[in-house]
Amino acid sequence: MTSPALLHAVPRAPGRDALAVAQHVAAQLAATAVERDRRGGTPKLERDLLRQSGLLGLAIPQQYGGWGAEWAEVMAAVRTIARADGSLAHVFGFQHLMLATARLFGQPEQWEPLFEATVKNTWFWGNALNPLDTRTTLLREGTSLRIHGNKSFCSGSVDSDMLIASALRPPDTRLAIVAIPTGRAGIRVGADWDNMGQRPTDSGSVEFDNVVLHPHELLDQPGPLGSIFASLRPCIAQLTFANVYLGLAEGALEQAREYTRGSRRAWQGSGVASASDDPYVLHRYGDMWVNLEAARALTDRAGDVLSLAWAQGDALSAEGRGQAAIAIAAAKVATTRAGLDISSQVFDVMGARATTAAAGLDRFWRNLRTHTLHDPVDYKLRELGRYALAAELPTPSFYS
Amino acid sequence: MTSPALLHAVPRAPGRDALAVAQHVAAQLAATAVERDRRGGTPKLERDLLRQSGLLGLAIPQQYGGWGAEWAEVMAAVRTIARADGSLAHVFGFQHLMLATARLFGQPEQWEPLFEATVKNTWFWGNALNPLDTRTTLLREGTSLRIHGNKSFCSGSVDSDMLIASALRPPDTRLAIVAIPTGRAGIRVGADWDNMGQRPTDSGSVEFDNVVLHPHELLDQPGPLGSIFASLRPCIAQLTFANVYLGLAEGALEQAREYTRGSRRAWQGSGVASASDDPYVLHRYGDMWVNLEAARALTDRAGDVLSLAWAQGDALSAEGRGQAAIAIAAAKVATTRAGLDISSQVFDVMGARATTAAAGLDRFWRNLRTHTLHDPVDYKLRELGRYALAAELPTPSFYS
Amino acid sequence: MTSPALLHAVPRAPGRDALAVAQHVAAQLAATAVERDRRGGTPKLERDLLRQSGLLGLAIPQQYGGWGAEWAEVMAAVRTIARADGSLAHVFGFQHLMLATARLFGQPEQWEPLFEATVKNTWFWGNALNPLDTRTTLLREGTSLRIHGNKSFCSGSVDSDMLIASALRPPDTRLAIVAIPTGRAGIRVGADWDNMGQRPTDSGSVEFDNVVLHPHELLDQPGPLGSIFASLRPCIAQLTFANVYLGLAEGALEQAREYTRGSRRAWQGSGVASASDDPYVLHRYGDMWVNLEAARALTDRAGDVLSLAWAQGDALSAEGRGQAAIAIAAAKVATTRAGLDISSQVFDVMGARATTAAAGLDRFWRNLRTHTLHDPVDYKLRELGRYALAAELPTPSFYS
Amino acid sequence: MTSPALLHAVPRAPGRDALAVAQHVAAQLAATAVERDRRGGTPKLERDLLRQSGLLGLAIPQQYGGWGAEWAEVMAAVRTIARADGSLAHVFGFQHLMLATARLFGQPEQWEPLFEATVKNTWFWGNALNPLDTRTTLLREGTSLRIHGNKSFCSGSVDSDMLIASALRPPDTRLAIVAIPTGRAGIRVGADWDNMGQRPTDSGSVEFDNVVLHPHELLDQPGPLGSIFASLRPCIAQLTFANVYLGLAEGALEQAREYTRGSRRAWQGSGVASASDDPYVLHRYGDMWVNLEAARALTDRAGDVLSLAWAQGDALSAEGRGQAAIAIAAAKVATTRAGLDISSQVFDVMGARATTAAAGLDRFWRNLRTHTLHDPVDYKLRELGRYALAAELPTPSFYS
Repeated sequence: MTSPALLHAVPRAPGRDALAVAQHVAAQLAATAVERDRRGGTPKLERDLLRQSGLLGLAIPQQYGGWGAEWAEVMAAVRTIARADGSLAHVFGFQHLMLATARLFGQPEQWEPLFEATVKNTWFWGNALNPLDTRTTLLREGTSLRIHGNKSFCSGSVDSDMLIASALRPPDTRLAIVAIPTGRAGIRVGADWDNMGQRPTDSGSVEFDNVVLHPHELLDQPGPLGSIFASLRPCIAQLTFANVYLGLAEGALEQAREYTRGSRRAWQGSGVASASDDPYVLHRYGDMWVNLEAARALTDRAGDVLSLAWAQGDALSAEGRGQAAIAIAAAKVATTRAGLDISSQVFDVMGARATTAAAGLDRFWRNLRTHTLHDPVDYKLRELGRYALAAELPTPSFYS
Repeated sequence: MTSPALLHAVPRAPGRDALAVAQHVAAQLAATAVERDRRGGTPKLERDLLRQSGLLGLAIPQQYGGWGAEWAEVMAAVRTIARADGSLAHVFGFQHLMLATARLFGQPEQWEPLFEATVKNTWFWGNALNPLDTRTTLLREGTSLRIHGNKSFCSGSVDSDMLIASALRPPDTRLAIVAIPTGRAGIRVGADWDNMGQRPTDSGSVEFDNVVLHPHELLDQPGPLGSIFASLRPCIAQLTFANVYLGLAEGALEQAREYTRGSRRAWQGSGVASASDDPYVLHRYGDMWVNLEAARALTDRAGDVLSLAWAQGDALSAEGRGQAAIAIAAAKVATTRAGLDISSQVFDVMGARATTAAAGLDRFWRNLRTHTLHDPVDYKLRELGRYALAAELPTPSFYS
Repeated sequence: MTSPALLHAVPRAPGRDALAVAQHVAAQLAATAVERDRRGGTPKLERDLLRQSGLLGLAIPQQYGGWGAEWAEVMAAVRTIARADGSLAHVFGFQHLMLATARLFGQPEQWEPLFEATVKNTWFWGNALNPLDTRTTLLREGTSLRIHGNKSFCSGSVDSDMLIASALRPPDTRLAIVAIPTGRAGIRVGADWDNMGQRPTDSGSVEFDNVVLHPHELLDQPGPLGSIFASLRPCIAQLTFANVYLGLAEGALEQAREYTRGSRRAWQGSGVASASDDPYVLHRYGDMWVNLEAARALTDRAGDVLSLAWAQGDALSAEGRGQAAIAIAAAKVATTRAGLDISSQVFDVMGARATTAAAGLDRFWRNLRTHTLHDPVDYKLRELGRYALAAELPTPSFYS
Repeated sequence: MTSPALLHAVPRAPGRDALAVAQHVAAQLAATAVERDRRGGTPKLERDLLRQSGLLGLAIPQQYGGWGAEWAEVMAAVRTIARADGSLAHVFGFQHLMLATARLFGQPEQWEPLFEATVKNTWFWGNALNPLDTRTTLLREGTSLRIHGNKSFCSGSVDSDMLIASALRPPDTRLAIVAIPTGRAGIRVGADWDNMGQRPTDSGSVEFDNVVLHPHELLDQPGPLGSIFASLRPCIAQLTFANVYLGLAEGALEQAREYTRGSRRAWQGSGVASASDDPYVLHRYGDMWVNLEAARALTDRAGDVLSLAWAQGDALSAEGRGQAAIAIAAAKVATTRAGLDISSQVFDVMGARATTAAAGLDRFWRNLRTHTLHDPVDYKLRELGRYALAAELPTPSFYS
């Protein structure tokens, strides 16, 4: 579903320097991010820009046609894009999470063709997995399978080519996870996301009306969290979030720097000639910098830990998975806090004129405030506390 | 310029219970605040609702037909309206500030007729005083006066009946302050405010194109900050802001309470049946409550101090004025901090679904973040620090 | 047990101006507070100074020979003394709490003679009530009563004339509360308190070795928390703590002011001539001031609320008691936070030389850190949260 | 000056595993740290323990008999010791700073023999350099040199074998830096440090009474901050502090863990059976953990950056030096904040009984509060702010 013409085509980088390509994409996204935030809806052109960049295959091993990037590199690309546009970073990050879901919960004969088709057709994957929404069920009549019911918070569902969805299947208590074409008969994508932040993520509803499911589309061996390795899935999700938050914080600070240096006047009575010499402005930049650097150091480290854990595959131990979860949880909390603080505090170093709607500088806070509610930061802190106090590692779940 | 029909007419309260009337107005404003925030522009119907409520004369002494309320009561009314709509509270608060400006900077023969006409014609006053914008000048040719130039941040200028404006008049270093009909030939109100918060305040530009000024419209005896009593003007402004911030924080918390109790589900793994029993949700409510109560106590106290200082008129001492300024500065800082924190933290007790654009719950933070940039909180803290350390009272200025 | 000679006798103020007398006492305590903190142990001279000041009868109604002060005034006296010495303020505050315990839990024929004897003999009351220490029991053989077992955290027990103690009495689940002379045979006061803060409070152990208890010494009608009015006891305790914390914070800030103005040099590179002009020093003073003022406003208000609630006696409603508890809890949290922050942050405005042991300026933090652990501030916040969210008032207990 | 007998001799590790040796030393220091804190004064036995451990030569290149450790490893050793005893970590860290001072400010013919003699004689170096204390001067009569005057804050001066000292030498505005035997005639070490924290560091006064200085003892080529490489000296100092702060925070948290798990009881009304399951206790551990991990990540990274910068020697660029300074400043601020917060907050997870003087758990806060005043954290933040806002690197000074 690639749109025919792109204003700024991204040349397929021969050297496949993911960060350079991501920066190129980010530069184009930056120019139109304010307008996209205002409009909401589906950023079709920009999704196609991502399709055409090749980056949708970033995490797919080279043997299947992908770029074979490690998680640390994938996360860096997500962060780079988030500096310019938190919403595109979100759906871009979910692309890799969806593919990882197929990889982790399914069998090679399931994910190998999906990997290859994703590269070949530049499929964009959407999410319909929300495990807290229990309205969708998997029905089995004889050998035939059907999915029925609704899902909320389906990020990237509009304009997606494939979906990862979840469904209840009582009496079996395990969630059924499936990979299914978005175009399958009976799937209706709501295009109804209209929220205060992360507006062009299409995180609305998907309706499954007795949708036929082919057996090979059910990712059930080992299934959700069905092995230690499979339980890396929430780790990838959480670290993706951390990188989105970090990129948003970096983007906000970068915009603030330009603004303070270019437009801010010294305060009357400050005794300095320029806002850039104001002692309180400098102190606030220092404060934001320390928090950002700390969040960055933790997130970078968590990326390395995840790369290592992933590389171990089925040899990954519970201890190794737990250490990754702890490192990622620390990054998640630190980026949440730094992001919310910085995206609000930047206004103190920019001043009242920076509130003009034309600049759209509140979008960083709105994006962060919206996305950081995915799961409660207080429960992440509880998890970290249990580790800090009693060396207990988190029990794997869709949020830990 | 009252619009002919109001959906909900406010009966003129015989007993003139200002808070009851303010609550009645606030209830009507609450129902449409989200839509008004989305649309921006001039809230004509709601401004007329205020006109019709009689509250525009709240601070005018009874001998001139007003309600004769003390500042503490005026501030309580501002706060009440801010709970529902920070923008209407803003322009409503400025009404009293503009009238006080005439009272403090001018002579009885100037402000007495203005007070009477305000009550009689239900004039709504707008602001064109921004002392940091130096583009407007007062020109004198013989005995004739003219104002020329532009002003920014002119809150409540659209649909206003009268304006308080400021102009430079070199070589005299004092600012010229004038009270002038908005309809005077040569005045063009920009209606161009489009910012991320306080959207329906019409805080845009006003252009003065060689506007004739009659001598009695110049408020020059004692003039701006021309006496100790006159220097209460910035105190009134700052305390008005504090009450807007406080009302916004109260409004945000009230919305959060309804949301948590009505819609929030317990977090999986929390071990409690209801979000209202979640230990972290409760802790956050407790934290927000303490900060709000503290801000409320400081703001109430500052209102009483201002009422007392005002009552002393020209007998007000520099010490008395200074103590009022300190009490008000403390309230300003506390409401700024509590407001920004609460309007962001409420989302942690409401959860992701509360980010729906339909609820518009981000408006509290956007309103607070925008308005709290009026003058830097860091310099208020410096002022308070000078007092705390060395018992030095603030030097009166348009911001202290 | 008044010591024969006092260096500085406090004249019994004819007008009984409690604050003036408290300030006089505080001035004397201030001169020796550092030495007392270093030494720990029983501040016998200073306890006798309090005895001789008449302030031990401050809260006793005039008809029994006391000063008849309202709680707001008692609390102000506690705070005044805490500025100079947190430990003496602690035991001084407990004097009134112990008398209130007799009043609230017992019958007039019990507390009237105790009030009169307290005034007549300048009794100092100590505490042996710790409800969390379950080692003490009340034994009944026929009509004879005995107390046996140990108690910890018995503030002011050494050099006390009377004790309020608690004991279990299964199968009755109510705590037995008694008023008993410290000199009764079988009571051994440990004099073994040696902690990092509040050092001269004698908050150590008391051992009861089959101590005879006369029936009239059992405060059992209405007994502990046995009526709404009786349940004001923990409110008085908590507000006493808040005032101790507030006084400590005020004392720390006052010492810092003197130090910054007298001894601190401007930092190299600050660009200012004096530390008193340093922008960061001023900002920190402003920050500490706002927090202190807020805590002060909440604590003053809570004192007024308590005075009112007390004045209602048995007519006090559950709602009235609950509102007092909420106001006091807010004051407790605010003073805890402000106190801990200020007593640490003052060093940033004083600099390295202020750490000399001779100045003993760490005692404010050590005193606050020790005393604020009496009961967890997190559970106070939970209580406040339940009120803020659901308008639920705290269930009376020894800590709420 | 090694004392003849050590209770626990440290075997000279054949493999010279610095961290293992440091842990061995730390374990011995931990057992007596509380007593040492109480007593203050010179920890002679423990200084000799460090002498005998071999660790005093840790940073000395192997060709001079040292261990040849990189800075990252030296810092890790400092941190390890600080977990047990912040004061010994302080003087141990200064050992390497003093040797680095000789290396950076002097010529090979000066520092080579000093390195060799340090290893051979297990010299412990003390500090008399305080550049803010201007009372010491270098006098030159013909070719003969003398030092005269006093110095304050001379950490590790008592029981030292060598001193690095500074002196003014007008009209030359550069500070004279010298390496001189502590035993030289005319040097009187005050042994007069008695402060609230870092008590056994002997950070008192040194008096120079016309002390003869031999020309080769003057470290003047390139002299203080006399080259880019030489200007790494304050970087080493600041990173040493950061590691002391971090170790203290780690030590405090470790003690808290033991206490919560071993002694803390669940709070009445918490609804949990054990303090280790208390939601607020866990949340606080999580919070402390995130802050500690962040500080740790920044400090580790800064250690690596310093190692790299050092390895470049005179090839080090101003940019490279500046980047090291920025990384170290971020670590300094983060460890200061985390340290002060954690060393106070641990009491909330331990409860009132943990305030017993026998446990001495307030020493972590007292040590941190004292040492973190070395230079104002606000000016470090200003430096970082200048970098964050305008990419300006800090101008080298003794504090930047």
